[in-house]
Amino acid sequence: MANNRAKPKVRNEIHQVFGINSVLAILSSKNKYHIQIIEILEKSHVTRNTDVRELLKNYVSYTRYLDHDIFNRKYGAKRTQGIVVSFSGEIVKTLQSFKEIEGNYCLLIVDNVTDPQNFGQIIRTAECAGVNGIIIPERNSVGITDTVLQVSQGTFCNIPIYSVTNLNQTLSQLKVEDFWAIAVENGIDAKPWDQIDYKGKVTIVIGSEGQGIKPLVLKSCDFQATIPMQGTTASLNVSAATAVVLFERLRQLKSD
Amino acid sequence: MANNRAKPKVRNEIHQVFGINSVLAILSSKNKYHIQIIEILEKSHVTRNTDVRELLKNYVSYTRYLDHDIFNRKYGAKRTQGIVVSFSGEIVKTLQSFKEIEGNYCLLIVDNVTDPQNFGQIIRTAECAGVNGIIIPERNSVGITDTVLQVSQGTFCNIPIYSVTNLNQTLSQLKVEDFWAIAVENGIDAKPWDQIDYKGKVTIVIGSEGQGIKPLVLKSCDFQATIPMQGTTASLNVSAATAVVLFERLRQLKSD
Repeated sequence: MANNRAKPKVRNEIHQVFGINSVLAILSSKNKYHIQIIEILEKSHVTRNTDVRELLKNYVSYTRYLDHDIFNRKYGAKRTQGIVVSFSGEIVKTLQSFKEIEGNYCLLIVDNVTDPQNFGQIIRTAECAGVNGIIIPERNSVGITDTVLQVSQGTFCNIPIYSVTNLNQTLSQLKVEDFWAIAVENGIDAKPWDQIDYKGKVTIVIGSEGQGIKPLVLKSCDFQATIPMQGTTASLNVSAATAVVLFERLRQLKSD
Repeated sequence: MANNRAKPKVRNEIHQVFGINSVLAILSSKNKYHIQIIEILEKSHVTRNTDVRELLKNYVSYTRYLDHDIFNRKYGAKRTQGIVVSFSGEIVKTLQSFKEIEGNYCLLIVDNVTDPQNFGQIIRTAECAGVNGIIIPERNSVGITDTVLQVSQGTFCNIPIYSVTNLNQTLSQLKVEDFWAIAVENGIDAKPWDQIDYKGKVTIVIGSEGQGIKPLVLKSCDFQATIPMQGTTASLNVSAATAVVLFERLRQLKSD
């Protein structure tokens, strides 16, 4: 897949996330990221969290305790839970080959999603639902911003995120490697989401609420799954739709 | 249920929502709310939306077109899509009796949810999933803020939201009216979410991520549904979990 490997950008960008979940995830993912500094609010609740204390032992020289005034001046408006970690490292990987993989395996393709809240929630939901990796296009989607990382609640540490230059090429290559492509979309050819078979190697493609999946990408998919709406409103939020489809997949795998 | 009816508060509060979905929902819900003013960005895309134009015919005297400078000064930072509506009216109702209702009927109880983003998403998802009503406690949860309404994308117009003073009393009363109560919670007695029977009259109880459902409320529930996590992270976002459970219910109703 050499030609379709997007170069990971801004390798040395400093990211910042806060809160116990995010910090625990980063500090547990040994050597994956380069910790720059961990700032903690003196005497705050987090200083008594045993999991955090244990992990901080490995980062003594990176840890700085700030008094209430200074911490609040820096991070006042954010829900930090009294802890903020700054780090660098590659969050996005280049796509690998999945040829050798057998059995149930799921890659989630996120096309066109531009809202960082949605993208962060999607990463979190995908990790919770046992998805094996997330693929994003280098362009046309929201990047890996700190908001995305924050909303994902540290899950980005535990699920690979691949960046590709051309989603159509990626889909073709994945088909060669025995993946079925399922688009979550309201097309005329769509079947209800629970009547799609998610077993084996599948790639599930989701698009933005406004624009949906790009036509060419949609055309490359083998199936379309739709979630019929019961109310008078147009559609489910994209991250809610993702949760519905990914846990239907899990239900099917469990009942196998 | 007279004793457990919470008095709707701040009857004349002015709410403000923006964007095409929200505005369409409010203007379509005849006489339900009192429109105060509709402000539109001159020459913006929304002025060419035929659905909006049609509905605006009934609100000519309430509609004001603002030029770019003035509109941006007022609403610049918000994603308005060029339209903002201010309105008043009762969004929260007092609980009614559901005694006479037969067949599939679902009330969603939202306990302890304090994040307006989550609550707004939950309203939207519930409406899309055909839930018949939402029950919130008068205290301990986020109120009906403009953020909640905005995130719900107008769905609050199409699903009743009931406010009660005491959730335990409400649950007892609903049981007398033949409801089964299902808590979405990770307890030791919990069964996987897809092994719960959601047919008939059910009330589904969800709590906040931090605190979950209050112990007394949980005790009043007949069943507990859990969504087993596949990753290394603690749990799904509460609005994602709600989507998973509500659409599993729908799947079961469809396959009946």
